[in-house]
Amino acid sequence: MGAQGLTCRECHAEYPAEALYVCERCFGPLEVTYEVDAGLDVAERRRHIQAGPQNLWRYSDFLPLDAPPGPSSRTLSRTGLPAGCTPLIKADRLAERLGLREVWVKNDAANPTHSFKDRVVAVAAARARELGYDVLACASTGNLANAVAAQGAALGMETYVFIPADLEEQKILATGVYGTNLVKVRGSYDDVNRLCTEISGERDWAFVNVNVRPYYAEGSKTLAYEIAEQLGWRVPDRLVVPIASGSLYTKLAKGFQEWLDLGLAEGAPPVMNGAQALGCSPVACAWEAGHDVCQPVRPDTIAKSLAIGNPADGPYALDLARSSNGSIDAVTDDEIREGIRLLAETTGVFTETAGGVSTATLAKLAERGDIDPEERVVLLITGEGLKTIDAVRDTFDSFEIEPRLDAFVDEVEDVVAGARR
Amino acid sequence: MGAQGLTCRECHAEYPAEALYVCERCFGPLEVTYEVDAGLDVAERRRHIQAGPQNLWRYSDFLPLDAPPGPSSRTLSRTGLPAGCTPLIKADRLAERLGLREVWVKNDAANPTHSFKDRVVAVAAARARELGYDVLACASTGNLANAVAAQGAALGMETYVFIPADLEEQKILATGVYGTNLVKVRGSYDDVNRLCTEISGERDWAFVNVNVRPYYAEGSKTLAYEIAEQLGWRVPDRLVVPIASGSLYTKLAKGFQEWLDLGLAEGAPPVMNGAQALGCSPVACAWEAGHDVCQPVRPDTIAKSLAIGNPADGPYALDLARSSNGSIDAVTDDEIREGIRLLAETTGVFTETAGGVSTATLAKLAERGDIDPEERVVLLITGEGLKTIDAVRDTFDSFEIEPRLDAFVDEVEDVVAGARR
Repeated sequence: MGAQGLTCRECHAEYPAEALYVCERCFGPLEVTYEVDAGLDVAERRRHIQAGPQNLWRYSDFLPLDAPPGPSSRTLSRTGLPAGCTPLIKADRLAERLGLREVWVKNDAANPTHSFKDRVVAVAAARARELGYDVLACASTGNLANAVAAQGAALGMETYVFIPADLEEQKILATGVYGTNLVKVRGSYDDVNRLCTEISGERDWAFVNVNVRPYYAEGSKTLAYEIAEQLGWRVPDRLVVPIASGSLYTKLAKGFQEWLDLGLAEGAPPVMNGAQALGCSPVACAWEAGHDVCQPVRPDTIAKSLAIGNPADGPYALDLARSSNGSIDAVTDDEIREGIRLLAETTGVFTETAGGVSTATLAKLAERGDIDPEERVVLLITGEGLKTIDAVRDTFDSFEIEPRLDAFVDEVEDVVAGARR
Repeated sequence: MGAQGLTCRECHAEYPAEALYVCERCFGPLEVTYEVDAGLDVAERRRHIQAGPQNLWRYSDFLPLDAPPGPSSRTLSRTGLPAGCTPLIKADRLAERLGLREVWVKNDAANPTHSFKDRVVAVAAARARELGYDVLACASTGNLANAVAAQGAALGMETYVFIPADLEEQKILATGVYGTNLVKVRGSYDDVNRLCTEISGERDWAFVNVNVRPYYAEGSKTLAYEIAEQLGWRVPDRLVVPIASGSLYTKLAKGFQEWLDLGLAEGAPPVMNGAQALGCSPVACAWEAGHDVCQPVRPDTIAKSLAIGNPADGPYALDLARSSNGSIDAVTDDEIREGIRLLAETTGVFTETAGGVSTATLAKLAERGDIDPEERVVLLITGEGLKTIDAVRDTFDSFEIEPRLDAFVDEVEDVVAGARR
């Protein structure tokens, strides 16, 4: 493949592969289109991927770049942080708890700044450099802020990062440490996003999720490729995916479809289950009401990384849930906390609130009987628990003792034994 | 290779490969000994490693297990968390700042619970299961607590985790979430360690860093193997490594030596620079005084993960610093904070205080002129910045504005431009 240009998702008008994101004719969003090289056979293509580096650049034939950055190994020089190739873990203990046969956890918290945003930023930054930009910028709910600031530090690019002022302190500190220009905006993410759209018209900067968004969004597809490759070139039966803007959710489906079309992956398009926090669930609400578009909401949830009240890809997400026989569910903040605990206790993976949303949604689907016991299900974990540590405070008991054996026996062992009786 | 048994490091008495850690004759520490299969040629051995999984089990021929756990891929079932195969990043911007030619950052924060402890726990837990244990336990300064609790959750083993009561809240929360029996001990790490040694004599549990310590310690060698493999089967000229107990520091040298002996890696044994926090620097103090043993100290430093006042492998660390033409340095808490910033700003890697210690020590060595500009240096980063987030609070400026373009221009851009003039 190779990026051919940009195409409007609505009216199919075509544009060159530049820093454009909205159709001049109909204001629809632009998406990268590819030219498929039908000449390569499947075995050859798979070998080529397997011989690539242990990061997302192994999939660079499917990414909108003139050339992949850097040398072909996980080690790299001046090419930025090595995102991708995160573990896919067979979660037998989680499956057992939910009465399912086969559950896999795709742990994308294992990226350099511990969220899937490192993927989209890697692609956006590489394309921004190809297009001649010196400054990277973004509007963020937190994870993107970490990723842009870190990537800028690795590449030696100046960065401007815009966040809602009330973000979790962990995400603010883990952004500022990289030496970025950190701008806290008094308002919601949607306010931040509007401001960034305005600035992007005035400054010659690459706003990763505004004017170079079509390239940025393609980075999410690599998650689909990896899952398929890690399952032995097979598409799973079902995915459970958190929804903020809806971009990741829809791009995952696009990634699987591209590989199914090329014969690179076997199987059928998966059932796509979207997951939102009840305190910010415009897509889940539209789904329940049977609407085609989302009503914007004012977010109020502990899942701040999903707190987008006016999701850009909402209508496409609703389409996909429908066409894939999926659904879009919402879970409460308490269910999110329980989801975090459930995942941690059964897999050893500690996720941020967004992963609590997807885990709680998987539990809900299992309980509702929506999942056939024979299915192979992949649960997407998009970020790290250390980033939203407040969510687990006071959710477990511990002991505090003097450093003596008798204190341990009396105050720990006897209590543990008592609790078991 | 294949584990042959245990040997006393002092009197060389031999023992079977069981849950033993101290010599019955002279009370010296026991270490695993291997039988080298001289029959395999180098190319064959390298191919075998390269065909292995993308985790530390690719090196299982050099680990003290009867059989490596799990299937041969990064995906895995009931075999625990996939530690190892962390990125080695060429840090050109850091090298430039320090006036050096070639610096690589081995980022072991990229492990499942974001520290190198996942390596040692993976090996200890696997061996504990081979020896028939049902309960995993540890004495920890924080990172080990995270790793043991997570590994226990992944494997479905009960765990007991003992920590000093005054540990960073991040590390406590990121341990308790896995559903472990978490015991906070009112005292220093050395008090915790003494209590655990006592309990390990009374209970039939695998304390990863007490009674199965010889197996646990071997896990650290995989860092040396990985670095050599990632550098194209070459040993670097110099390593800068944080020292707590001294185990990691000495085992790294052991790992390189094993591969040099087998011809698997090329080069010479590296210069080994140890790094301690001044507030807990028993090994650096002994080094400066020219002593062979360490005087125990009471720790007082922000680098809590290195806060071991009575380091078990102190004498061996002093030996190694001497024999490798290295040194053992100590840095202040302020230098640690500066080290964290320096690494973040130049590489995009955000490390915990321990990585601040090794980065600050590298800067000190460079400034002192101890490093030949032609050398290839590897800086070891053992843990993640999100775990000690308090260390970066108030270390950078940020802006807070209303969501309006004019506010951005007046309150951000003009200030940034002013600072540059």
